[in-house]
Amino acid sequence: MYSFKNDYSEGAHPKILNALIESNMEQEEGYGNDVHSQNAISKIKKLIGNENIDVHFISGGTQTNLIAISAFLKPHEACISANTGHIAIHETGAIEYTGHKIITVDSNDGKVTVEKIQEVLEFHTNEHLVKPKLVYISNSTELGTIYTKEELKVLSEFCKSNDLILYSDGARLGSAMCVKDSNLTLSNMCNFTDAFSIGGTKNGALLGEALIIKNENLKKDFRYLIKQKGGLLAKGRLLGIQFEELFEDNLYFKLATHANEMANLLTKGLEEVGCEFLINSPTNQIFPILENKQIEKLEKKFDFHVWEKIDNTRSAIRLVTSWATKKEAVLEFIHEIKQTIYSENLN
Amino acid sequence: MYSFKNDYSEGAHPKILNALIESNMEQEEGYGNDVHSQNAISKIKKLIGNENIDVHFISGGTQTNLIAISAFLKPHEACISANTGHIAIHETGAIEYTGHKIITVDSNDGKVTVEKIQEVLEFHTNEHLVKPKLVYISNSTELGTIYTKEELKVLSEFCKSNDLILYSDGARLGSAMCVKDSNLTLSNMCNFTDAFSIGGTKNGALLGEALIIKNENLKKDFRYLIKQKGGLLAKGRLLGIQFEELFEDNLYFKLATHANEMANLLTKGLEEVGCEFLINSPTNQIFPILENKQIEKLEKKFDFHVWEKIDNTRSAIRLVTSWATKKEAVLEFIHEIKQTIYSENLN
Amino acid sequence: MYSFKNDYSEGAHPKILNALIESNMEQEEGYGNDVHSQNAISKIKKLIGNENIDVHFISGGTQTNLIAISAFLKPHEACISANTGHIAIHETGAIEYTGHKIITVDSNDGKVTVEKIQEVLEFHTNEHLVKPKLVYISNSTELGTIYTKEELKVLSEFCKSNDLILYSDGARLGSAMCVKDSNLTLSNMCNFTDAFSIGGTKNGALLGEALIIKNENLKKDFRYLIKQKGGLLAKGRLLGIQFEELFEDNLYFKLATHANEMANLLTKGLEEVGCEFLINSPTNQIFPILENKQIEKLEKKFDFHVWEKIDNTRSAIRLVTSWATKKEAVLEFIHEIKQTIYSENLN
Amino acid sequence: MYSFKNDYSEGAHPKILNALIESNMEQEEGYGNDVHSQNAISKIKKLIGNENIDVHFISGGTQTNLIAISAFLKPHEACISANTGHIAIHETGAIEYTGHKIITVDSNDGKVTVEKIQEVLEFHTNEHLVKPKLVYISNSTELGTIYTKEELKVLSEFCKSNDLILYSDGARLGSAMCVKDSNLTLSNMCNFTDAFSIGGTKNGALLGEALIIKNENLKKDFRYLIKQKGGLLAKGRLLGIQFEELFEDNLYFKLATHANEMANLLTKGLEEVGCEFLINSPTNQIFPILENKQIEKLEKKFDFHVWEKIDNTRSAIRLVTSWATKKEAVLEFIHEIKQTIYSENLN
Repeated sequence: MYSFKNDYSEGAHPKILNALIESNMEQEEGYGNDVHSQNAISKIKKLIGNENIDVHFISGGTQTNLIAISAFLKPHEACISANTGHIAIHETGAIEYTGHKIITVDSNDGKVTVEKIQEVLEFHTNEHLVKPKLVYISNSTELGTIYTKEELKVLSEFCKSNDLILYSDGARLGSAMCVKDSNLTLSNMCNFTDAFSIGGTKNGALLGEALIIKNENLKKDFRYLIKQKGGLLAKGRLLGIQFEELFEDNLYFKLATHANEMANLLTKGLEEVGCEFLINSPTNQIFPILENKQIEKLEKKFDFHVWEKIDNTRSAIRLVTSWATKKEAVLEFIHEIKQTIYSENLN
Repeated sequence: MYSFKNDYSEGAHPKILNALIESNMEQEEGYGNDVHSQNAISKIKKLIGNENIDVHFISGGTQTNLIAISAFLKPHEACISANTGHIAIHETGAIEYTGHKIITVDSNDGKVTVEKIQEVLEFHTNEHLVKPKLVYISNSTELGTIYTKEELKVLSEFCKSNDLILYSDGARLGSAMCVKDSNLTLSNMCNFTDAFSIGGTKNGALLGEALIIKNENLKKDFRYLIKQKGGLLAKGRLLGIQFEELFEDNLYFKLATHANEMANLLTKGLEEVGCEFLINSPTNQIFPILENKQIEKLEKKFDFHVWEKIDNTRSAIRLVTSWATKKEAVLEFIHEIKQTIYSENLN
Repeated sequence: MYSFKNDYSEGAHPKILNALIESNMEQEEGYGNDVHSQNAISKIKKLIGNENIDVHFISGGTQTNLIAISAFLKPHEACISANTGHIAIHETGAIEYTGHKIITVDSNDGKVTVEKIQEVLEFHTNEHLVKPKLVYISNSTELGTIYTKEELKVLSEFCKSNDLILYSDGARLGSAMCVKDSNLTLSNMCNFTDAFSIGGTKNGALLGEALIIKNENLKKDFRYLIKQKGGLLAKGRLLGIQFEELFEDNLYFKLATHANEMANLLTKGLEEVGCEFLINSPTNQIFPILENKQIEKLEKKFDFHVWEKIDNTRSAIRLVTSWATKKEAVLEFIHEIKQTIYSENLN
Repeated sequence: MYSFKNDYSEGAHPKILNALIESNMEQEEGYGNDVHSQNAISKIKKLIGNENIDVHFISGGTQTNLIAISAFLKPHEACISANTGHIAIHETGAIEYTGHKIITVDSNDGKVTVEKIQEVLEFHTNEHLVKPKLVYISNSTELGTIYTKEELKVLSEFCKSNDLILYSDGARLGSAMCVKDSNLTLSNMCNFTDAFSIGGTKNGALLGEALIIKNENLKKDFRYLIKQKGGLLAKGRLLGIQFEELFEDNLYFKLATHANEMANLLTKGLEEVGCEFLINSPTNQIFPILENKQIEKLEKKFDFHVWEKIDNTRSAIRLVTSWATKKEAVLEFIHEIKQTIYSENLN
């Protein structure tokens, strides 16, 4: 049974495993002070074209979000997030555990707009309500959609002029950046946000996210906060080595491009048989709408999430591809769905 | 320069790396629901001889302590710890961040005694003070000392009869258990405590601690709490695979035994030249007292922590060995120290 | 300028001030262990007809909500509240500060229904999401509406069968209970909920809410939690004396009845001139919809909140009455509004 | 039975009750925006001689400490306090609940010294430990001792040059300032600290502390934080009116002077019969050491705390006086103790 369930089903890209083996018996400083972490930080700074940023490696996405957001906010300050945002739903109240309210705005496409933020600001005007201070976006979003460079610029300017922190969760940033014809760069991400993450876990690493902090006011004592939340790995080399590899020879972008291509291939195959989609996604998560009968048949050969009931006979499923997705599996899925439809027609 | 600075200077035991490579392209469930994690849990249950325990794998020691303790306590309940305890000093207030006071008791050897706990209980008797509820011990301790089986039994009985939770931080449990002539088993640890951890990071793994929960009242919904604190790795297989290997063919205990033997060899060599020690440690951390001049010379060839000033001419240093420590390095250190003393005498 | 802005514009009912003066030089135990607090507790237990409940006096409503909810929940557990709920909006994220998410359900009338709770439960089914555990209701609600005895029974049974805690915020419980023809008793409130508060501040006291805890599992060590959050007043007598008076000769209910009557009088006068209302409220908060021009005129003589824009020419205002509201002021308001309409017609 | 148990056994000074009655039916804005609170703030600013300070009224001492400290610190920052400090012992872990460690320094007299703070700073030098950021002192201390103007100046300068916040808990500030020959002024308190409180509860009010914030960096959005912790009373007038009275005609200082005089009278009487003291206290708390037999006899006529066992036959007791302490009761206590000694001698 082949799985399109998520982008963390396999281990790490072989180059990463190789690098772990080669460096294994080196004696290194702990807690991210090793040469590999320092080297990876240099590479990222060079890629972004900014030596004045701070870069921290943290083990996972929820961990990164909760450390960053709780470090950036004072106790009465709140986040604004799309109602589909990972922090708003799928992190077991991690942000609230650190004491901060998440104000959700309704969103059909996983994205936050200036209009929605404006409404929140207009409502929250005195000390009986929380003070909205940070805008959380994810790029690509939980629905596979992306913010274009232009959209990010608009958000960025609005946040700046309203004294709001713009933070981007990049668990799937690679996928967002490697969409065909995208001209979004890491340098853009850095310019437009106060802080953003570059996800490793879902793009070829065993684990690890890089957190980039540009805003000077948010940098101070940040390692204290990573340590306090249990995010400072003793063998920090494990994270450093992986990001060293991911940013060698554009591996990070090659892997994300492969993931997107595999998803696009699935999309194309599904479109060919007339399939509709819950939402139009150019990235590595797609949401085709299928007959429940079809889904049942597909489930015998493939693993995936049934995302949402559409009506009594149809549901949207989620298919996720990754750096490790095999083209043959994609073709087989398309073949299977064509068969399914063919046999449907016979009935 | 060879480092005796800590037991997390190198990567992982080669068997672990091997297992990562061999399993790399398997598609597994995320978040610890993979077959490797389930298999590692079975192995640990078998070793302990108790099928009714819960086992969770968590990325690091601070993370494990903070998740466990904040899950076990109500807001007004406090921990009791030796003033040398890791949670009391070296975790950047991680436990306090979760809202709980740590009541420290003075300790010369890193250990907590029934007498000291009794004093705390007698002082904390009403709602204007916190309610002591959990006793935190580390075995081996931050000073390299250990609790014997008999000492643990006494602590355990006292805690039970005073409605206190006994929690043992096992970041270096291997080293404690593999001390020569020790008869402490994992089964004992389980019987004597309500919950305890088995450290991987400092005994051959890239990262990871196993948390064992025996007390029924402490088990419920524990995965929610791991997730909320950012401790549930998407690729949980990374932890499962490592513990699978560590508990195959007694690898865990072999590695700890090697670490202890290397430390014992250092101790013996130092004793031969008349060296005194800050404390008598049978485990992989030792604390010899040296002339400052000697320390300066040794620092040119070896890396280690200067632990504590003793007087104007002498300091205690900390030497830490691990599964990866090379016997030649140990012998060279001993040789060097003998040379140092010889040349000292010439002056 | 007469104020209908809220129900805490004046000081305390004269009987309360009198009792403060009479008892002033008595030497009493601190922190609620005084004879007045004990006496007030006895009265409340007798009124409820249950000796096994715990009663605590706490200074304010937000304080009561945050102490109770944070005491009742484990870190990963969440509240369900109407989106209009006081804890969801007007407490500056007090509940989130204690670490708990509030899951809001849409509500037009300020009330939570079994259907809405059911939807929340169906969505929150695994450890990546918070665990809904407590249902927060306010009676009367923030929109002046009430839960009838029958509605509370239905909610109560649903919560019991779904292992949910039902907690009722009674900042305006008096007003809810004293609605004409209501047969809701304190005894009912106790039977239907796990814990509920009886508000003093908005019904004649200087400050103070009584928190009633019926559910045995929620009682333990509660005074520790009041103290920890700064809610245990040194001169706890101040709260005890006030509740002694409020529950002497039904003063509490007489005051709430007066408040409701004044609001009903306003409603009747407004209806006579054809006024529409945002919502049908039988309690001491009403929400008439007026022409903006009318509002401007009224604002010259009366103080009140403009609640919500209805369209380009009309808004809803909020009028609040209390134990202290003067009938003459009500009649003058009605007179004024009739004048306003008359003069409007002249234009 | 007359009580010397504490300084909050009686209600409020009659002038305060009077003011409550006179203002009772005024309609005022809620949440501290009433004219009385504004007027009290003006008086305090004038007394201090600084218009640029912020003044907030909060219901109790623990509440004030927890709101202030949690507002002033970032998550990884810690307080330094004497081990006798109220926040360190008698607030049920309120500060830790807000996430901050309290680093205690040993103290025999309830006071913190520059030397002790220096030691803490020297130990806490990296991100594995908390960052000491705020020095908590209480004046007068929990042992009745005081900081002189000169001592405060030294502390203040040290804190400034080490980037530490100096915060003074003034639950008994009146008593400290009204010690005979003291030349400490509110203006001094303001100059020497970043923030300090002026206690009302223990000096004539029903409840209430004034928090003074001088440091600009600590002022922002402070009302949000009061509200979030449940400290913003709906009828904030209750606090404003009391402080208006306390700072009219020097009432606050007259009351504290009376309390001190009564304690001094007790001290003198006890000294006359040769009594020793646990510590030399010039304020309203004294700690005489008595024979256990004497204590038993005194307990039949007076209420007080037995503070600490001295040896097998003697204990220290705590006697507390207040604005309400009657001179006759003091004289009777002295008479009784002389009798006791006389009858002792007869045996």
